Amino acid sequence: MRPNGRTPQQVRPVKITRQYTLHAEGSVLVEFGNTKVLCTASVDESVPRFLKGQGKGWITAEYGMLPRATHTRNNREAARGKQSGRTMEISRLIARALRAAVDLTALGENTITIDCDVLQADGGTRTAAITGGCVALVDAINFLVAKGALKASPLKHMIAAVSVGIVDGQPLCDLEYVEDSAADTDMNVVMTECGKMIEVQGTAEEAPFSHEELLAMLELAKAGIDDLVTAQKAALAE
Amino acid sequence: MRPNGRTPQQVRPVKITRQYTLHAEGSVLVEFGNTKVLCTASVDESVPRFLKGQGKGWITAEYGMLPRATHTRNNREAARGKQSGRTMEISRLIARALRAAVDLTALGENTITIDCDVLQADGGTRTAAITGGCVALVDAINFLVAKGALKASPLKHMIAAVSVGIVDGQPLCDLEYVEDSAADTDMNVVMTECGKMIEVQGTAEEAPFSHEELLAMLELAKAGIDDLVTAQKAALAE
Amino acid sequence: MRPNGRTPQQVRPVKITRQYTLHAEGSVLVEFGNTKVLCTASVDESVPRFLKGQGKGWITAEYGMLPRATHTRNNREAARGKQSGRTMEISRLIARALRAAVDLTALGENTITIDCDVLQADGGTRTAAITGGCVALVDAINFLVAKGALKASPLKHMIAAVSVGIVDGQPLCDLEYVEDSAADTDMNVVMTECGKMIEVQGTAEEAPFSHEELLAMLELAKAGIDDLVTAQKAALAE
Amino acid sequence: MRPNGRTPQQVRPVKITRQYTLHAEGSVLVEFGNTKVLCTASVDESVPRFLKGQGKGWITAEYGMLPRATHTRNNREAARGKQSGRTMEISRLIARALRAAVDLTALGENTITIDCDVLQADGGTRTAAITGGCVALVDAINFLVAKGALKASPLKHMIAAVSVGIVDGQPLCDLEYVEDSAADTDMNVVMTECGKMIEVQGTAEEAPFSHEELLAMLELAKAGIDDLVTAQKAALAE
Amino acid sequence: MRPNGRTPQQVRPVKITRQYTLHAEGSVLVEFGNTKVLCTASVDESVPRFLKGQGKGWITAEYGMLPRATHTRNNREAARGKQSGRTMEISRLIARALRAAVDLTALGENTITIDCDVLQADGGTRTAAITGGCVALVDAINFLVAKGALKASPLKHMIAAVSVGIVDGQPLCDLEYVEDSAADTDMNVVMTECGKMIEVQGTAEEAPFSHEELLAMLELAKAGIDDLVTAQKAALAE
Amino acid sequence: MRPNGRTPQQVRPVKITRQYTLHAEGSVLVEFGNTKVLCTASVDESVPRFLKGQGKGWITAEYGMLPRATHTRNNREAARGKQSGRTMEISRLIARALRAAVDLTALGENTITIDCDVLQADGGTRTAAITGGCVALVDAINFLVAKGALKASPLKHMIAAVSVGIVDGQPLCDLEYVEDSAADTDMNVVMTECGKMIEVQGTAEEAPFSHEELLAMLELAKAGIDDLVTAQKAALAE
Repeated sequence: MRPNGRTPQQVRPVKITRQYTLHAEGSVLVEFGNTKVLCTASVDESVPRFLKGQGKGWITAEYGMLPRATHTRNNREAARGKQSGRTMEISRLIARALRAAVDLTALGENTITIDCDVLQADGGTRTAAITGGCVALVDAINFLVAKGALKASPLKHMIAAVSVGIVDGQPLCDLEYVEDSAADTDMNVVMTECGKMIEVQGTAEEAPFSHEELLAMLELAKAGIDDLVTAQKAALAE
Repeated sequence: MRPNGRTPQQVRPVKITRQYTLHAEGSVLVEFGNTKVLCTASVDESVPRFLKGQGKGWITAEYGMLPRATHTRNNREAARGKQSGRTMEISRLIARALRAAVDLTALGENTITIDCDVLQADGGTRTAAITGGCVALVDAINFLVAKGALKASPLKHMIAAVSVGIVDGQPLCDLEYVEDSAADTDMNVVMTECGKMIEVQGTAEEAPFSHEELLAMLELAKAGIDDLVTAQKAALAE
Repeated sequence: MRPNGRTPQQVRPVKITRQYTLHAEGSVLVEFGNTKVLCTASVDESVPRFLKGQGKGWITAEYGMLPRATHTRNNREAARGKQSGRTMEISRLIARALRAAVDLTALGENTITIDCDVLQADGGTRTAAITGGCVALVDAINFLVAKGALKASPLKHMIAAVSVGIVDGQPLCDLEYVEDSAADTDMNVVMTECGKMIEVQGTAEEAPFSHEELLAMLELAKAGIDDLVTAQKAALAE
Repeated sequence: MRPNGRTPQQVRPVKITRQYTLHAEGSVLVEFGNTKVLCTASVDESVPRFLKGQGKGWITAEYGMLPRATHTRNNREAARGKQSGRTMEISRLIARALRAAVDLTALGENTITIDCDVLQADGGTRTAAITGGCVALVDAINFLVAKGALKASPLKHMIAAVSVGIVDGQPLCDLEYVEDSAADTDMNVVMTECGKMIEVQGTAEEAPFSHEELLAMLELAKAGIDDLVTAQKAALAE
Repeated sequence: MRPNGRTPQQVRPVKITRQYTLHAEGSVLVEFGNTKVLCTASVDESVPRFLKGQGKGWITAEYGMLPRATHTRNNREAARGKQSGRTMEISRLIARALRAAVDLTALGENTITIDCDVLQADGGTRTAAITGGCVALVDAINFLVAKGALKASPLKHMIAAVSVGIVDGQPLCDLEYVEDSAADTDMNVVMTECGKMIEVQGTAEEAPFSHEELLAMLELAKAGIDDLVTAQKAALAE
Repeated sequence: MRPNGRTPQQVRPVKITRQYTLHAEGSVLVEFGNTKVLCTASVDESVPRFLKGQGKGWITAEYGMLPRATHTRNNREAARGKQSGRTMEISRLIARALRAAVDLTALGENTITIDCDVLQADGGTRTAAITGGCVALVDAINFLVAKGALKASPLKHMIAAVSVGIVDGQPLCDLEYVEDSAADTDMNVVMTECGKMIEVQGTAEEAPFSHEELLAMLELAKAGIDDLVTAQKAALAE
């Protein structure tokens, strides 16, 4: 039996609040149960040096966690003078995933930076960040369209992400912290709204996993991402 | 005429939400109008090395700003590998102010770390951080008392802080961003609930200020801090 | 048609040279075609602080690339004062994969550090590093057994890794650089010698990939890893 | 009774030596009793990027302390790879204070950097640095005027700084180290030669301070700064 | 008696393998006995900013050691975020020595970077790096001549380097690790192929050395360098 | 003809002022003409971890240059967050040279740190630092003897250092900046008071140097160091 009586297939209650803060072109608070991530999208009407003059745009992302988003306090990365490998790895994952949602040529020479800051962590912060970050990205794109900087939206499709895993031999969708800690295998999946794969990262934490287990996890992921895309679209329709 | 029709004496609407996040021993979202700062207090039942064995406790603080808390995006300090001078200066101010609220000997060999992270900035982030941080500190102290780690609360008095300044020759209390940018002089004042001074930091931005202007600003600060202490006590009474 | 006339299923010529350098307890030069990685295993008869007193061992890894291992020179990370996100991500992957090969409790309070330094890069450096690193790890474990520090080998199974991808619609095994640059999808797979999965990391570089494409890539990976394990065992038998 | 028989109002013997070193456009050794700070002013005929093309100049400052300027050796900041918060805070204070002495528009697109390096510390290093730095600044300005780079001096007024504090209930001017360590309250004041305020920074070290105490400290500061300005002018007249 | 029966005058077996790796314009594995250093020369058809527009070229060098090149593992400098003083000192020595081999004006506005990475250390890594680096430099220069970027080779003369020292009162040439550890005095000498001196660095490790000892060491160095230049020329003739 | 009419053999006027600052156990301002270096010796009655429990002491040194010690301002190393290779190389040289003056076993488990900060540079800062640093070291040793921490002085002999070079074919002793910039060859020599060598570092800046030139430079160095030792002893006799 899962915490809060969820079925193995069920994602946690998802809440997506747009315009959560004032200044950013896109600003979304995304909640997967107790996991809360603030995702802002910032538009910069230029591109990094390596893209100058190619007529293409860029999407980048940075992930961070407030020091006391977790059960015990983590040292502040800015004070330590160094981002951890985990932080850099997650930032790269979010950026790569969101770039796959956009036709960079149609974006023109604009950069959109997605900042994902975890206010409260309870498992699945990177998948929440991707899911909420995509909504913030859409808002920033629509801002560029509304002000006439873009003729049409370069969005190719929504993307969303969920974690799946195997706990005590049981495949589960959208692991929360206590489940994640007990998982034999943990997999993060990013898909398009049509169910095609953008990124699959499966890791055997305790024991190697079989082909059948992989298939079971992918099936859960697909269903979970369907629910997340529905929530994204509902939020964008408001 | 001030934005939103405030009188020169008036602080912005203050909102103090306790238990804003789950994990920290104290967790407060403080809002001074559009300025929003998340203040968490984390208890560590030990002390830094320089205090070991002296039977005294320690209060420290760290300040940060999310990259898009402001009108334009600031680079993330963790990514740059370095905190700015401004960040370090504000962290030191908050820590010094909050230490003045507590009898460190009565705190025993415990450390309380106050993290103040600005979610949205509209002027006065450091004074909001001190005001909200003091409430989070009280919650953390009460946590230690409740679990029996402390016999009695080591709190000496509440403290709160407000910015005052002179804009177009007019002294104003609790400057918001547009006022702050136009100020000739800017002063941050930290006081105890009884109106004694903990810290006074006045800076001539454009023109030197006179003794009379200093007195006028201090008077505004005292009244503003009275209102903030009332809000702190109301929040703690809930 | 692939470079050097390889079939889609075929891995590059694999060469595993043990005792490549003198000082390390395990020292392996692994070559996947033109990709050459020096993997050393260093034994430290103690554990990191977070494991002290638990009777368990630890496996860690660090990845690096000589500045001119690639077509154009990359700045030296030691000179820049910072490892890139890519470097940290790969180091974490190698370490995680190799830990999955060992029963850490049976390793006792020993740490084995695997350094993987790329002398020459032509695609697949991380999979070569894992494959060669596992052989160096086995040599280091055998060193501990030979000197009596361990009663029995804590090795659970060999592991090996290969990259697979889709280039012009065609699934290919063990991509070399020119193929990797042209791939729509790129996947790194780590498996045990029995074909169970340790890590699967698939990324859509250009276009999302389908479930069928994922299955095709996994099948190629399994066959490729079989060949790599054969090469590992042959090297260890010498 | 104060050390060396000073009255509460009295500043320490002040010595200002111009042209202390050869190369800088302004070079001043300032001594407040045993506190000795070498202040150099370096002219750069350009401005930082954020000011380019605005026809305005810039004044900046950096503060440092030799490792053995103090009773016990402090680690060298260059070796630790990081300036302390205290160092950055003081650098910012000096720069802000000296900018208030100059009409930046009249300075033209020139930058003057004031380096303040403490050779020997005995309290009041930041106020000595501001007082001596202003003399070095004037010499650098006069250098620019003499070589024809500026038509007229952009100096608006001399500025000087002093620390005041309350020790055992007694307000004292220009605290030396033993007094500073025992102070309940410590305040640094920067004023123009006409007695208007540039910066006021008062901190309750041990106990909050009252309005009356603040007024008493400000009065002492004003008289002390008068004496310092007299010393500055005498040095510049030589 | 020396290890391996060498006479005091004898250098270790020297092996210089050109084209050791694929991508670099010059790539040399140099072996002085068990000391093995990979030296690559990378051509960049531009110069650092301080040389722009002067019509001159530049030679620079970086030295590194793989973590387990030595008896016990050294922490990776890239991971520590800092190069050691020893590393920087050796990098500067190599660069200075190799610049002395070339007419920088005749090199035109090209930069050649020599990376020297120690794969296995057994004493004399810096002298091996200079000796092998010079061969890699020649290959890179010949690359520029072959592609027509340079009309003629700017090489002035070959240079090579050897360490000499005094062990138990006996002057020895080309110290290996066990000798180096026992030396009273250690000297690194860089000479041109004609026997003129480029760099002499002698250090009393245990006891000051006399003028006569210096002369004895220089004589050994000259003979050793003759042998090394012969080996360089043989390698280049292949 | 040399600046100030010096003969080729002549060192600049040397001035050694002891007790230049208050707090350090040894504090010396050394002047070689216009080169001025403040050398402090700080005693720490413990040793670095790698020497703990061996009954031996340690001498270490750090070199720094004030930003405007030179003709144009250099960026402050503490602000850049990194010491230059040159700074680290000189620090290592000073420390090695001064360790050679002392019987470390007779020093007991004490550490003496020599900080050499250049107030004004005109060539020869490292040799002035060694020469003045040795006097500060002697004062610190005598402090330990006087307070009874050491039974007898562990000083083996005075050491001093001078630079020599070849300018326009002429060997010169104690180069000042304009000579140093024009030198074909530059050599720093550290000797004991008896004329034995501690360190010889000769570098061909423009042209390789011959054996005869080396001998000529060493002869000049020996005479110059004799004069410096005389100055050291006179200062210590005061």
